[in-house]
This record gives sequence, structure tokens and C-alpha cells, in this order.
Amino acid sequence: MTKKRNIIVGQSGGPTSVINSSLAGVYKTAKERGFDKVYGMLHGIQGLLDEQYVDLSSQIHTDMELELLMRTPSAFLGSCRYKLPEIHDNPAVYEKIFMILDKLGIEAFIYIGGNDSMDTIKKLSDYAIIKGHNQKFLGVPKTIDNDLAQTDHTPGFGSAAKYIAASTKEVIRDALCLTYNKEMITIIEIMGRNAGWLTGATALSRTEECDGPDLIYLPELPFDIDKFLNNVKELLKKKHSIVIAVSEGIKLMDGRYVCELSGGTNYVDAFGHKQLQGTAAYLASFLSAEIGCKTRSIEFSTLQRCASHMASRVDINEAFMVGGAAVKAADEGDTGKMVVIDRVSDDPYMSAASTYDVHLIANNEKLVPRNWVNQEGNYITDDFINYIEPLIQGDCQPFMVNGLPQHLVLK
Amino acid sequence: MTKKRNIIVGQSGGPTSVINSSLAGVYKTAKERGFDKVYGMLHGIQGLLDEQYVDLSSQIHTDMELELLMRTPSAFLGSCRYKLPEIHDNPAVYEKIFMILDKLGIEAFIYIGGNDSMDTIKKLSDYAIIKGHNQKFLGVPKTIDNDLAQTDHTPGFGSAAKYIAASTKEVIRDALCLTYNKEMITIIEIMGRNAGWLTGATALSRTEECDGPDLIYLPELPFDIDKFLNNVKELLKKKHSIVIAVSEGIKLMDGRYVCELSGGTNYVDAFGHKQLQGTAAYLASFLSAEIGCKTRSIEFSTLQRCASHMASRVDINEAFMVGGAAVKAADEGDTGKMVVIDRVSDDPYMSAASTYDVHLIANNEKLVPRNWVNQEGNYITDDFINYIEPLIQGDCQPFMVNGLPQHLVLK
Repeated sequence: MTKKRNIIVGQSGGPTSVINSSLAGVYKTAKERGFDKVYGMLHGIQGLLDEQYVDLSSQIHTDMELELLMRTPSAFLGSCRYKLPEIHDNPAVYEKIFMILDKLGIEAFIYIGGNDSMDTIKKLSDYAIIKGHNQKFLGVPKTIDNDLAQTDHTPGFGSAAKYIAASTKEVIRDALCLTYNKEMITIIEIMGRNAGWLTGATALSRTEECDGPDLIYLPELPFDIDKFLNNVKELLKKKHSIVIAVSEGIKLMDGRYVCELSGGTNYVDAFGHKQLQGTAAYLASFLSAEIGCKTRSIEFSTLQRCASHMASRVDINEAFMVGGAAVKAADEGDTGKMVVIDRVSDDPYMSAASTYDVHLIANNEKLVPRNWVNQEGNYITDDFINYIEPLIQGDCQPFMVNGLPQHLVLK
Repeated sequence: MTKKRNIIVGQSGGPTSVINSSLAGVYKTAKERGFDKVYGMLHGIQGLLDEQYVDLSSQIHTDMELELLMRTPSAFLGSCRYKLPEIHDNPAVYEKIFMILDKLGIEAFIYIGGNDSMDTIKKLSDYAIIKGHNQKFLGVPKTIDNDLAQTDHTPGFGSAAKYIAASTKEVIRDALCLTYNKEMITIIEIMGRNAGWLTGATALSRTEECDGPDLIYLPELPFDIDKFLNNVKELLKKKHSIVIAVSEGIKLMDGRYVCELSGGTNYVDAFGHKQLQGTAAYLASFLSAEIGCKTRSIEFSTLQRCASHMASRVDINEAFMVGGAAVKAADEGDTGKMVVIDRVSDDPYMSAASTYDVHLIANNEKLVPRNWVNQEGNYITDDFINYIEPLIQGDCQPFMVNGLPQHLVLK
């Protein structure tokens, strides 16, 4: 009897519309490359520590279910926001994890996540090498924020960008029809604590039949509220309906978040990140007070990361590809790496997967470069638009049952 | 030479995903019934008073453009919120309107809108009869709020309900994957000042693979915040992720809006309606303070009425049908009527259009009946679900160009 070769996969951090397409890619490639069991950690490394896992073949029985998984938003296996301690601070946690991996006969450990999740891959692969364990640890990129280093972009970003651009177009149409002989300012708040990739995606709504937003503010540049007010006043001389896109994370020169000006409460998560909300609402009431016209604020909120009904086909396919590429790399002996997407060509758009040392990726944030924002700091450049545009192409229709998108759920 | 027979159509009030499908129905039927010119008022009656109108044949050149119009959200012609004065208070306004109608050779005046717009049809048809004008005035129902009397439901409601139900399903998936060993309460705020039809639609997300929201609160019943807190505490004994749907317009026993408790500013529109926002945010901070667990609030906001990418085919078709039926009724001599939708059969679902005296519709609000809400006042009944379900069936894919839904816009 040949030795059993098992693999385990987990999902971590904020979910996306296509995180399950990566899971499908891991599952399918693992089966095709002859792994015996494909385990799924429930709620990532945190669940694994409680020995919470499933055999994925008990969940996915047919190719149609695999397709349905690819169209299901949010982490199928459950997610977590759990930061592994430093190895020297708490070796017991590591001993427990490797005891469980040994018990399950795991050869490869695949973790689908963002920055914080790559920190987990880094620590586990370091520990394995130090202690002489043979398991391979591979990271699969996932984040709507697109802030991972070394990869051209991250799976999840394209679909979020597509949802944001489509919704911005619809909001602009809504605003235009309501503004006859009166002014209205619409402020759209987009996710992005430090990186403005998603907020920039609102510019994709500028098409042959739509002006797109009038002003775009990213968190990479300090937000000058006086200049902002002047920009808006100038625009109101030319048009009645002004639409402005802002990142939730824009900050004043002095470092305060704009959303803090409203005096709301702020929740801090396990990684010490402040939960930001209310930036658009604050600016809407500010402009209403300063200018006296009607204003409204719209937060696209959680829908940005779970609206799989507006997923991009390019994104779904790439998410699947990086999941499969991680299994291939682990199977070929790689460890301590994250799969990255390389842009092979812009026109026509082509991409391929390779791997990169996770130590150079974890805890690093990729921000929008200064030269992809205009001089005034209130719009993005064509280079930025050309970068995103290929990532929102193609559709992936949900399986509609009884009028609603169907999802695959854990049994 | 035979006499010219011209018709004019306008759109009014808050836009919907399918208001342009009614416009397409008016245009196509008017052309087929031999009307010469089909004029469109720009920004409804308010624009007409400024002699702002277009010849629609200058905008719609092909059948494909007509199809594109049906897939374009928000009022193609522009909308307004303009209340006609009482006839005896300001006859000059009426004289001006009829002078313009006479000049354009208008035989029929079609107005697509909600409650306030039917008030316009009522006044204009009354004036015409009093003064001996021959024009016919017909209303076409439109409102996501579904609060018009005498019609089984209103075009626009089904698509908003479909978007809300689909988004609620996606938000529930998002919440579930984030709640391992910790509690989180998600509060979704849905449009609806006095009528809870849209908030009830969140219950459609209860399917074979989704629990749906745990609690649903409509504005028809007083909101008891102590009972609410107890309900939530009971639920938290059984599950980690609680999802609650509330109408923006829920009120306490003493008549205060819940959103007023947070002390925010409230804008009042031309019809004296308060703009409500912040109900979910207030309840999220209330529960967070009382229970101490993580809470989050999500407002579906404007997207509920403009997300034509999630339109219901039944809704699109019925919107087209009522537009056409209004032209037919006017052409056959009817006036002072609104087209209504009659539910011919539940199973299979069938509907037909007829007309009803607008005097019995205008300024009347249809609320959710008490027996369609459960005894405790925190969920809806199966009768309510069976009523909505047929209205969200079938899809109407947007025309995707460069990865985004394409719209027809005024040239």
C-alpha cells in the first residue's frame, strides 16, 4: 500500500466574491495530482487549533457543485482573523498545529488570504524548517483591497472593482434624473483603509454614456478639506449633479481620519485596525452646511466583497488558477511562498501564476503609486484605469433558483 | 391631410430599475396605435412648464435601443418632485400647461409615477373636464415602495425586492463566515417610510441553503426596543450570527422615528416627507452598548431603486405592459385613470392590466396588512412571502460592454 498523501486548505481574513473559486482550484488540482484526502479547516487556523475540519469530498460531489462553489461568495469553510503568536513567545501553539497536521497525514498546507494570512504562512513555514517538519506551506492571495506586494493584483479585487464601477454607474444615473433646477451632491464611500485601489475603480464608470465620478479621493494622499470645498464649488458652476468617491480611510494633514471628525465610536479589530465608517456621511453634512444644497451619502459597505452576482469572469478564473498553482508548487516541493499573478501582456490581457517568497510579502502593503493620481490629488490617471480595466471583464452568471442566486453551503 | 395625433409622456418621483421599461411600453404602443409624435417631458411636469421636452423618435432609433432603454435604470427623461397647486389656488399654472399641450397637438398625457404623481393626473384630468379640454390623462404606476392602492403591486417593487433578497443572502453568507467563537449582529436598513413591503422582501432570502434574516421589523407596527433587545438576547443563545432587517421608517410607541434617537439632522422634501437615515446605525450602537458584542449596520440605500443589473424579468415585462395599457386606454377615450395590475392567478402566476379611477388612488398609501406580520411583530407570514415570490422571478441580463452594464442616455 502506498503512503497516503493528504492536503489541507483554509480561508482567512475578510471574504471576497471569488475566495471560493480559489478553494475550488485547490480541490480540483489536488484531486487531479493524486492527493488522497483534501481537508478543509473550518474558520481557518483558529478552527484547526480546535480540530475543526471537514473532508471536502463530503461536500463537493459533482462538477456542478464545484461550479456552484465558484459562484458562492464569502468563505465556504468559514474565515477567521487570528494572528499566530511569535514562535518564541508561544511554541505550544505551533506544537499543537503540527501535531494535528501529522495526525491527518498532511503533506501540504494551503492558506487563502490577505496580508495577515501570509504572516501565518511565513511563521508556519519558518517553524517547519527550524524543527525539521516536511509539510509544505503555500499562500494563495485573496483580498478585495489589492494591497498585497509582488503580485500584479489580487483575486477578489477585480470582482469588487466591477461591482463598484457598475453600482457607481447606476448611482450616477439615479442622481442625474433627480437634479432639475436644483443641485445635489452624492458622496460614495468605498472600502480601503490605506490603499485606494477600490476607490479608484469608481473611475471605470466613466464610459461613452456616463461621466463617471467628478472627484476621487484616495487615502494615499492627505485630504485637504478646504481645497475639496473649492473643487466642489467650482464644479457646481458647471453642473447640477456632482458625484464624489472617497475612500473610507482618507485622512487630514494632521493624521486624523475624516470619519473621526463626526465623533462616532470606532471599533478596533484583533489586528489593531480601526473600523472606519461615516466618512461620506460626515462630508455630506459638511458640504450641506457650507453650500446649502442637498447632499446624500452612500456606503457600498459589505456588498463590495460579497456581491458575487456581479463577479468578473477574469477574476473568477484567476482565483481558480492561483488555487491550483499553490497545490502544484507544494506538490513540487515549494514552501514558504505565495502564489503571485504576473501580467504577461496588457493588450490582449494575459496573466500567469508563479510563486514568490512570502517573507517579502507578509505585513507589506502595496499602495497606489503617486503618479497614478493626478497632480491635484482628486482623480486617477489613465495608467491606473488601464491597469484595472482588464480585471473586470467577462461575466459569471449566478445559478438562479427561484429568482435568486444559489450558493453552495457547508453540510 | 388627416389631423396629427400626438402623445406626451413624463416620469416623476423616485426612480426605479424598470421605470424606463414603462416608457418603452408607452413609446412602442403609441407608435403601433398610430400616434404621430411621442413627446417626452424632461423632468416631468416641472420641465414641461419650462417647455422642456424631446421627440422620442430622436432618441430611440432601433429595436436594440428600445431593449437597451428597458435595461436602463433611473428615469431616462429625468424626474421631478413637483406638486401641482390646487386648481383654485393657482389657475395660471393649469392654463400654461394646457396652452403647451394644445401647441404640441397632444391628445394623451401619460405620467409614470407614484402616489404624488397620481395627484398630478387627478388634478389635470379634473381641470380638463371642468374646462372642456379634450386631452386624456392616464397614470402608469411606478414605485419600489409598492404602496399604491387598488393595484395588486407596483412595477419597480419586484426588482427592488429581488435586489434586496439577493443582497441579503450575500450579506448573510458574509456574516456567517466571520463568526467563529464570537458573536456578531448585522442590521440591514431597507427603504420604506410608512410601508414595509421592501423590508418584508428580505424574507425571500430564506431558502433551502439560507436561514434568511432572524428578525424583521416593518414600520406598520410600533417598535418596542425592550422587546427587541430581549429577542436578540434569546437568539444569541442559539446562534453566533444574527441578521436583522429593519425599515428606515420604524417608530417607537410615542411616534418618534428610531433614527431620530441618534440626533442626526433630517432633511424634508417638497412633499413634506422627512428623509430618514441612520436607523440601523443607531440600533447597531444600541445593541453593541447593551450586549457588548460586535455589531455592524448596512444600508442598502439608493442601490435598491437603481440596481437594474438585478432586475426581475416579471417586473420588466409588467412595467412594459402597464405603459402600453395606458396608451391603449387613452386612445380608447379613458381619462383620470391609473393602470392597475390584477393578479389573475397565483399558481401559475398570471397578471393583466386594467384601469381604475385615479381619485381613489392618489394620496392613498397601501400598507402591509396586520395579518401578514406574525403575532410578535418581528417577522412576516407565508402569505406575504407567497405574494412577493412570483414578482422576483426571471432575469433580464444587462447588455454588458467593457465589463459594465450599458445604459441608454438622452442625447
